This record gives sequence, C-alpha cells and structure tokens, in this order.
Amino acid sequence: MSSRDIYKPADKLIGHDKNVWMEFTALARDYKAVNLGQGFPDLLPAHFVSEALGRVAASKNFAVNQYTRSQGHPRLVSVLGKLYTILMKREIDPLSEILITGGAYESLFCAFQSFLNPGDEVIIIEPFFDCYVPQISFAGGVPKFVPIRAKENATSTKDWVLDKEELESAFNENTRAIIFNTPHNPTGKVFSLEELQLIADLCIKYNVLCISDEVYEWLVYDGAEHIRIATLPGMWERTVTIGSAGKTFSVTGWKLGWSIAPKELIKNIQTVQAQVTYTLATPTQEALAEAFEHELPLLGTEKSYFKELGSMLQQKRDLMAKLLREVGFKPTIPEGGYFMMADTSDIDVNFDEYDKSDDPQDYKFVRWLTKEKGIAAIPPSAFYSSQHKHHGSKYIRFCFIKEDSTLQKGAKKLKEWKDEISK
Amino acid sequence: MSSRDIYKPADKLIGHDKNVWMEFTALARDYKAVNLGQGFPDLLPAHFVSEALGRVAASKNFAVNQYTRSQGHPRLVSVLGKLYTILMKREIDPLSEILITGGAYESLFCAFQSFLNPGDEVIIIEPFFDCYVPQISFAGGVPKFVPIRAKENATSTKDWVLDKEELESAFNENTRAIIFNTPHNPTGKVFSLEELQLIADLCIKYNVLCISDEVYEWLVYDGAEHIRIATLPGMWERTVTIGSAGKTFSVTGWKLGWSIAPKELIKNIQTVQAQVTYTLATPTQEALAEAFEHELPLLGTEKSYFKELGSMLQQKRDLMAKLLREVGFKPTIPEGGYFMMADTSDIDVNFDEYDKSDDPQDYKFVRWLTKEKGIAAIPPSAFYSSQHKHHGSKYIRFCFIKEDSTLQKGAKKLKEWKDEISK
Repeated sequence: MSSRDIYKPADKLIGHDKNVWMEFTALARDYKAVNLGQGFPDLLPAHFVSEALGRVAASKNFAVNQYTRSQGHPRLVSVLGKLYTILMKREIDPLSEILITGGAYESLFCAFQSFLNPGDEVIIIEPFFDCYVPQISFAGGVPKFVPIRAKENATSTKDWVLDKEELESAFNENTRAIIFNTPHNPTGKVFSLEELQLIADLCIKYNVLCISDEVYEWLVYDGAEHIRIATLPGMWERTVTIGSAGKTFSVTGWKLGWSIAPKELIKNIQTVQAQVTYTLATPTQEALAEAFEHELPLLGTEKSYFKELGSMLQQKRDLMAKLLREVGFKPTIPEGGYFMMADTSDIDVNFDEYDKSDDPQDYKFVRWLTKEKGIAAIPPSAFYSSQHKHHGSKYIRFCFIKEDSTLQKGAKKLKEWKDEISK
Repeated sequence: MSSRDIYKPADKLIGHDKNVWMEFTALARDYKAVNLGQGFPDLLPAHFVSEALGRVAASKNFAVNQYTRSQGHPRLVSVLGKLYTILMKREIDPLSEILITGGAYESLFCAFQSFLNPGDEVIIIEPFFDCYVPQISFAGGVPKFVPIRAKENATSTKDWVLDKEELESAFNENTRAIIFNTPHNPTGKVFSLEELQLIADLCIKYNVLCISDEVYEWLVYDGAEHIRIATLPGMWERTVTIGSAGKTFSVTGWKLGWSIAPKELIKNIQTVQAQVTYTLATPTQEALAEAFEHELPLLGTEKSYFKELGSMLQQKRDLMAKLLREVGFKPTIPEGGYFMMADTSDIDVNFDEYDKSDDPQDYKFVRWLTKEKGIAAIPPSAFYSSQHKHHGSKYIRFCFIKEDSTLQKGAKKLKEWKDEISK
C-alpha cells in the first residue's frame, strides 16, 4: 500500500553513519600496521583482574550469570560507593548516586538523552572525544564549540589552554550543559584547578549541568593531579562524573562504565538506560567489584595498581616521545591519558598526488603512514568541529598504552623511515 | 542566569520512570519470597558455557579483554552466521547481516530508533513484553495494539488466537512496523504457520517492517515447531529477527543478543548502536562463540543442549501446572517459553480491605501472594495497553525455569495455602 522505501532510516540518523573509527580501524587491519591508533592496551590485564573473572566463571552461585540489579550490581556499586566517597570527599550513596552503564559510552548517551530537549545547547570543549557530537544531536541538542588552543611551540599539554572570554561567550540562556574530558583525549591535557574553577563558575552563573568525562582519571604523570570538578564548591549538585572500568583496569573490552551524580540526575539517566539496555553484564560486574575490592585498601600506597599503571605508562610515554622525535615529529608531552599529539609540520611529505580527497591534512598523513610506513594512528581533526578542524590537522594522535614490543615494532618502522629520509 | 530546574528531565522521559519490574522485583526481594516472577533461571549454566568463560579469563591473548569489532566479535558472528544459515534456510552473511547488541533489549531499542520518525505507527500484538511500548514512544513512534484473545475455557496457548479482521484493521498508511514475540511472553504461545502467514501477508500488503522477537526460539514443547517469519516468502527482505544469548544458554546476566536482517536494515540499526554502546563486551562474546561452536555440530541430535533444555523445561512446566492446579489456579499450558499464565478466577480472595489502590486485580493478587504467601509472580496486565488490561487482569504470570528445589519450595508454600483453604 505505502510506496515508502522500507529501508529508509529515521531522519535523525542522517549524517550519522560514518565515524573516524570505521575507516582507520579497518585501515590498520587491512594493512596489518603496527596499531598505535585506537585507544586500547595490547597488554594482558593485571593478574588479579583476570583471576577475578576466572573465579566468577567457576562460581557455583547461579546468580553471577543471571540478571542483576538494573542500576548496577550490588557488590560493584557498593565498592564504587566506598571508593568515590574518598575521591569525591563526600558520602556517595551506592544505591541512588551511582549508575552502571555499558561503558562510559552508554553513560554519555543516556545522560544527554536524559536532559536534552530539542534546541538545548551543550558546550563542548574541543578537541573532544568524537562521539559527543552525534550523541548530543541524536538527542536533539545543539553542540557549541570552544577550543583549547596550543600556544606557539607548545611542547607540553600545559601549553594547551582555555580562554576565559571565549569560554564565557559560548554560554547563554539556551545552554543546558557543558561537557569536557580530563585527563583529556586526544591531547592528554590535565585540566588545572584554575581552569576547572573557571568552568565551575560559569556552570553556576548560567545554571547549567556539567558532564565531566573522567575515564582517564588514574592516568596522570610527572606528579600532575587529577582534580574532580564535582569536588569544587557548588558543583556536586550539577555534575555527572563519568568513569570507565576499561580505562581503569586496562580492560576496554569489558564495556563497563558508570555515572556518579546526585540522585535526581541518576534517576533520569537511569530512566533512559532502562529503555536502552536495562541491566549490564553480571559476570564482569562481579569480577570488576572484586578488582576494586583488591585495589581499595592499596589506594595511595606503592602497591596500588593505579600507581603502578601510571609509572608504567609514563615510561611508555617517554619512549614514544623519543621515537617520534627521531623521525621529525614534534610531540606534545601529555600530563595524562594514553595518547600523544605529534606535530607533523616538519615532516616533508607531499600527498597531493597520493591522496586527492578533500580531507584535512592529518587524514591524508595517517592514511599514508598506515599504508606506506605500516604504522596506524588517528587523525585528530576528527575530534574538532568543522570550523576548527584546522586546529588539529597538523597533528596526528598516537596511543602509547602498548606492549614495549609493540612500541619497539613501531620504532623499527620509524627507524626504517628515518634511514630513508636521511639518504 | 536561567531559572530552570536543573534536574528537569527531557520531555520525552515523562511517564517513563516506572515499570512493573521495579515494584515486583523489589517486593520479591523485600519479602524474601520464592521468586517465580522475573524470567531468569536459578540454575547453573551448562558446564561447556561456564568453562568457555573460564578459558577466556585465563587466556594469554590480550585481545579477549579489549574492544572488539563494533558490529559484533568476529568469532561470534561467524558461528551465528553458520547457525542462522541453517535456521533461516538462506546464506546469512556474518559481517553485514548480523549485529550483536546488549541483550535482545538493545536490539529492540536500536531497531525502533533506526526507522521510526515521529508519528509512525507500530502494531504491537498484545500481551507484549512491556519494554516495547516505552521504546517505541521514546523514538517518537505510536503504538497500536491488537490482542491475542483467549477462547472460553482456554487450557492451552493453542486457545489464544489472533483475529484476522482485527489485525488487518490496525494497518494503515502510517504503519511502519509490526512487532510480535514467538514463542511468546507472557503466555508461552507459539505462533502457528497460519498466523505467521497472516502477519506476513499484511506486512507485504502494507509494505511494513516486521520485528520478530524470537528470544525463546529454542524453548518449545510437545513437539511444537518454532517457525521463523523471516523464512516465509517475501519476508526476509523486511524482517528483523531478534535473538538472545541469555535465553538460549540460560545466562540472562551475559546481556548479549543479536539482530539478524538484510544489510540495509542492520546498517541503520548499527548506526544507532554506534551512538549507544558502540561495541559489546569481548570476553562474554568470545565465550558465547565457543558455546555455539560446541552446540552447532550437535544441533538436532540427542546430545543437543537446546534439545536437553527443552526436555528439562517441559518437565518443569508440567510440574508447575500440577502444583498450581492443586490450589485452584487454572493454568494455561504453554507450548513454548518459560512462563505460564494462571487464571485466578476460582481463587476466592477479597483484596478490597487489603489493597486500596486502583490497580488491576492481578497487581493486587501478586502483591498479596508475595507478601502473604511468600510466592513472587508478575501481574500480566502490565503487558497490555490501558484499553486491554482487563484481558490480563484475571491471570498471573509464573516463571518455571527454576531449580526443582525452588519449584518444590514454591509447592510447599502453595500446599500450606491449600491446607489453609481446605480448613
């Protein structure tokens, strides 16, 4: 009867069918490149994490394989409540102030869906994790962009800064929320207290929500301190803090994350999650709870896994920076996270014949690097709005949470390239 | 600046903050009732399923704990492709015609979001799994309801039937899709070929999509045959078939499901899933792949787990029916699934003093049964639209995928009750 195209997607899907991961993950695979692109460790998880999952698999308690509490497995929210009571410097109620989600990713999706009406604006500090924009527009929201800008000859992410006036000019009466990420992907910037206070002041002044994506919270170097914006005065009441098991215990494939917020916000986010997945996997939640129970008493000591992870990654960061410099990249040393932005300006490659697309320079560079040099990376202009892509296009993003052997393989490829250049 | 209530949810959340599970799951827990309510097994998973997860936990392959392919773990979609190539009687391409999701639940959410524009109608055969309605309205769709009706003195789900004229009258030019569930929750009805052909003819005539929720596909009794509507002529092209690891291997807590459909539909559903969770848990996908690899060569033989599960459940079904009859329920014998609708008409309890709410009779009955008799169940009028709740309110839904010891505990409680009645 109806002559409609039965395969026609809903209008809101239009333009959402592509993202940077699809092209560059496939490219890395197809060219069997050393993958320094997508942000996942190629290390084994800590033994106590794997062993916890093994115990769950062998458990004679039927419940570990069946539905658990929709808002989060009781044992997991209980230990997270204890941990974040310390970190947030306030009592966190595990039953009403924590929501477990399918990775931090589902926390982001559900949070945006929970409070955005069509036309509501969300300020995004860019560069940004690329899913923020489609998730916001999928909820009918309108993204507004404010860049952190690299100073001339920036060598550290301390040189990537937020401008007060520029940030305030993005706020108006339609602003419903701001989202940012610290420690930051892709730069590795760790927001300073001054910057966080600036954001907090504006959130309070304009009565907006703050979505604080803190998935790299344990990955800080050179003594940098990760500050949770929810701990600033007046901010708990309006902040959703998002965390990730994948980043915390180097198990990105477990796809467990959480939102921590006042119960009024958690309730709304959970209303969305109850439409989307309803409840998350029990065996991994049970194992994750055990992993946190293992770590909690060690927190702040030399035996802390989080501390060991930070030390290990700091060494990998320094190794990667050295290797990149040797072939002419100018890396920006990150204070946190597991990515590094490397300036390609001094590397003389002409892509005009090689890649005739209209894509930004970094897309062309990464395609060339992957196909010709066997090293996969990610083009950071994917993490910018269309008007600011030029901020990112002279860089490429490398990931350094990789086995030393992977980094050495990358080094070998880089060295071959260097020898070629030197000829 | 803005005086808005910062906690105000998005408009589309209004009315979505409650569901039947919240009240009755809490009630079962608070009263420590024998839980014959929510549909999860209290059995251990099959040994080969648990062992597969154990092997994954002990694996020295880093990749099993890291992000996998967004559309589905390669090993899992590969074996599902082989299985459904047999079941669907056509070659299923694992890379373009299968999408792994966070339970069947996320498949449903993403499917509705992928094709519904505001005002599009979706026909729901009721009673229905309760999430269909909020998921459809969350996507802006409009549910239209067509009940299956119990004949006078129905004793089997064969007596619960769909009326041709009533069904066709729900179709019009705004109809975008129909959704139904076979084997059916809550009744256990297994749709006959005639009924499926009726639905198929209307789908083709009105050019609408068919969302076929087949999560109980392996649970059929007394020789009943589960027929996949996508195998009827002209239906593959317009059908999304949804399956569930939780129901298939009795591990509801693994929260893995799938959509199987033409690539044009899978692509759109995946565009939504890429906003929601992006990728699902790798360790459980790897273990699930191994479980299917174990089962695939046994399919149709006496050693098949699916066959064993069906035989086991048929016995549990018959035991439950016997126990329920002894206290005066009139159970409707299900041909499939793991639920049973029991008619309460002959049980004389007056709730007027006990429960002064305006809720349907079955809500009152289940509250009373849980609190006073220590047996938790689910009120099936929750699975009906407001205009048809009276179809469900004389029944209550019991779940029989429970350890015999749980069923015996239930039996003991029922016997105590019977002795009381007989006094």
